[in-house]
Amino acid sequence: MNCGTELMRQADVLGLFTEDAPHITRVYLSEQHKQAGEYLIGLMRRAGMDAGFDALGNIVGRYEAESPDAPVVMTGSHQDSVRNAGKYDGLFGIITAIACVKDLHDRGKRLPYTLEIVGFCDEEGVRFGATLIGSKAMAGSFEPAWLDKADDKGVTMRQALRDFGGDPERWQEVDRRGKNVVAFVESHIEQGPVLLNEGLAVGVVTAIAGATRLRVNVTGLAGHAGTVPMGSRQDALTAASEMVLFVERYCEARKGLVGTVGKMAVSPGAINVIPQDVEFTIDVRSGDDALRREAVAAFQSEFEAIAKRRRVKVTAAPFYSANAAPCDEALQQKFADAIAAHGVPIRHLPSGAGHDAMVFPTVAPIGMLFVRCGNNGISHHPDETMTAEDADLATSVLLRFFEQFDPVAFAARR
Amino acid sequence: MNCGTELMRQADVLGLFTEDAPHITRVYLSEQHKQAGEYLIGLMRRAGMDAGFDALGNIVGRYEAESPDAPVVMTGSHQDSVRNAGKYDGLFGIITAIACVKDLHDRGKRLPYTLEIVGFCDEEGVRFGATLIGSKAMAGSFEPAWLDKADDKGVTMRQALRDFGGDPERWQEVDRRGKNVVAFVESHIEQGPVLLNEGLAVGVVTAIAGATRLRVNVTGLAGHAGTVPMGSRQDALTAASEMVLFVERYCEARKGLVGTVGKMAVSPGAINVIPQDVEFTIDVRSGDDALRREAVAAFQSEFEAIAKRRRVKVTAAPFYSANAAPCDEALQQKFADAIAAHGVPIRHLPSGAGHDAMVFPTVAPIGMLFVRCGNNGISHHPDETMTAEDADLATSVLLRFFEQFDPVAFAARR
Repeated sequence: MNCGTELMRQADVLGLFTEDAPHITRVYLSEQHKQAGEYLIGLMRRAGMDAGFDALGNIVGRYEAESPDAPVVMTGSHQDSVRNAGKYDGLFGIITAIACVKDLHDRGKRLPYTLEIVGFCDEEGVRFGATLIGSKAMAGSFEPAWLDKADDKGVTMRQALRDFGGDPERWQEVDRRGKNVVAFVESHIEQGPVLLNEGLAVGVVTAIAGATRLRVNVTGLAGHAGTVPMGSRQDALTAASEMVLFVERYCEARKGLVGTVGKMAVSPGAINVIPQDVEFTIDVRSGDDALRREAVAAFQSEFEAIAKRRRVKVTAAPFYSANAAPCDEALQQKFADAIAAHGVPIRHLPSGAGHDAMVFPTVAPIGMLFVRCGNNGISHHPDETMTAEDADLATSVLLRFFEQFDPVAFAARR
Repeated sequence: MNCGTELMRQADVLGLFTEDAPHITRVYLSEQHKQAGEYLIGLMRRAGMDAGFDALGNIVGRYEAESPDAPVVMTGSHQDSVRNAGKYDGLFGIITAIACVKDLHDRGKRLPYTLEIVGFCDEEGVRFGATLIGSKAMAGSFEPAWLDKADDKGVTMRQALRDFGGDPERWQEVDRRGKNVVAFVESHIEQGPVLLNEGLAVGVVTAIAGATRLRVNVTGLAGHAGTVPMGSRQDALTAASEMVLFVERYCEARKGLVGTVGKMAVSPGAINVIPQDVEFTIDVRSGDDALRREAVAAFQSEFEAIAKRRRVKVTAAPFYSANAAPCDEALQQKFADAIAAHGVPIRHLPSGAGHDAMVFPTVAPIGMLFVRCGNNGISHHPDETMTAEDADLATSVLLRFFEQFDPVAFAARR
């Protein structure tokens, strides 16, 4: 298609809509969200789409079918980022789809369905702590209580949405359930090293891993670092360290399972005081829900044993849990066909990361295309990379998917 | 002596001079330092002493000998506290000495030496990061560069000292070297469980442990918690956890050595991001300097091995080091005699905690009396306790020490 270089340029532009240049941080309902959205809306309109922000700040473009009654296929990904992010996570799934429509539009070609591209307003949940806000709203699982969540400065989502020009009262209008959507597909950088290690530009996602997040609190007893004999200590940090290593060891021993302790706080946190309290989080994921649930139970059981042996207390409470979301078999096959047509070996792989697609099964069957992630698969980090060649090939595959997709046959086959 | 209940009451009063009631936090040059100092100066004056703040905020009271040429014996401890402290750490060493002088004064008795009681302005180093400020100034090891250290709010020690009413230019005047001081003795709560476990109210300190503090930085590689396979990770926190457990295991295996990881910071510190950087501190102490130096070398060597195996980087740099300070044998004997006179078995024990006394050997021989610490020996914590009975007995022992102490014979014997 020869759009790879242009997509790289667009990603560079979007990377400059950041609150902390030279880093990339773009959170929900920020000035940078507005700027990125306006830029994407401009790209959409030049590609022949009707486009604008919806009531919640999602960026929505429609490439209308010839028939006003035609079904809808949705695609897209999120516009927001983690703190100190890479340039392709989320955004690539928006700009690659716009490039497909631009190609169709330049050729004057319409599809037998309306193609709707969404730049989801907030997937990462950095600002208000609720994740997948935009996609959940479209999938009918928005929780209005989120509107009362406040950011670090005390600004509620409701207020921020009004300031942004959105309308918190109209959150129900974005729900796509029952709106004749026949499929949701998402193209996304892999954010891992699997395709890179196998020398493949793209791959077909089999399922989005389920995840459980736990908050673990270890409570020991503070004491003077110089005076309490080693054997008399109830050190919350040495206990927590054993737990961290257990999570790692357990997940290493089981294929298809990953577990991460990403946050830890130690208090009182003085050089010369034995730690009394440690709080840490665990993020455990698997495409296999049973394997994940076993892991959570094993963590809780082992933590109790460690705590008992060390005379400390522990609680390990899940605060977030999502089952794995399998990708539709027929959509997987269609992506595989489109990849094969470009002469690339077919690689099916699960997604360890969560994506907007995972909440869409309430609306329509989902499919995902992964694009190779350079630099050892680093993502959520400035070193995240994608090549122009891969971006171009992935867009060609996606375009072929769109052109080959027959919504009537697809609906009948299911 | 029957002063135990009064000393408990005085400790209760001083505990109310805090910035964060119901917790106890009293830092150098704070309003609370001023209030505690004024209260102590009042007690000193009512006990017949000349008393006031010196240029650095030390609280100094003198109970003059009859002869103006008489030598000086110094005693006291620190007025400041850690955050969320106990009531007796430091302060007890000041009020017990004032109670001794009050008893002498009430009986109209003078000593063959001037007894100087000091409430050291800052031992813990909470506000400016420099520890033992008051005692080091008196012992000739004050560093004028400390005056430029700033607290969390950017206020320098120099400015804070001026605001307090002190005089940063006059720090050299508090130096007691060459001022005919023949001994420095300190009474202090043990801050550990040794006396408690043996059923003893008081004990004689043999040495103040030496300490090394290290700052350890582990650098791995951030990555997405869901997408980087376990075997491909360079997780700074799992590496750090191994190091924490090594410190514990190493110290547990060696009598007379304690090691503590009290502070740890994990970054970027997100639930779904593999930790890239971990910084933690180690505090390692021993009465045996060689044992402590071996431990530091063993930590550094094992950390390198862990880092190499886990493909992360590590630095472990000492930023503070103090050799053990032995207590003078003759002063130990005099405390032992005073304890024996009260019918208590003699227990000699090292101090794992650092104390103001440790810097005084440049001025005069040092001696220390330890007082039983309740509640399993907890200190630097609100659960720190001392009984009125023990406070009374310790004061009687200290008073007997003062009354029996002959500065001329002591100087001749050395």
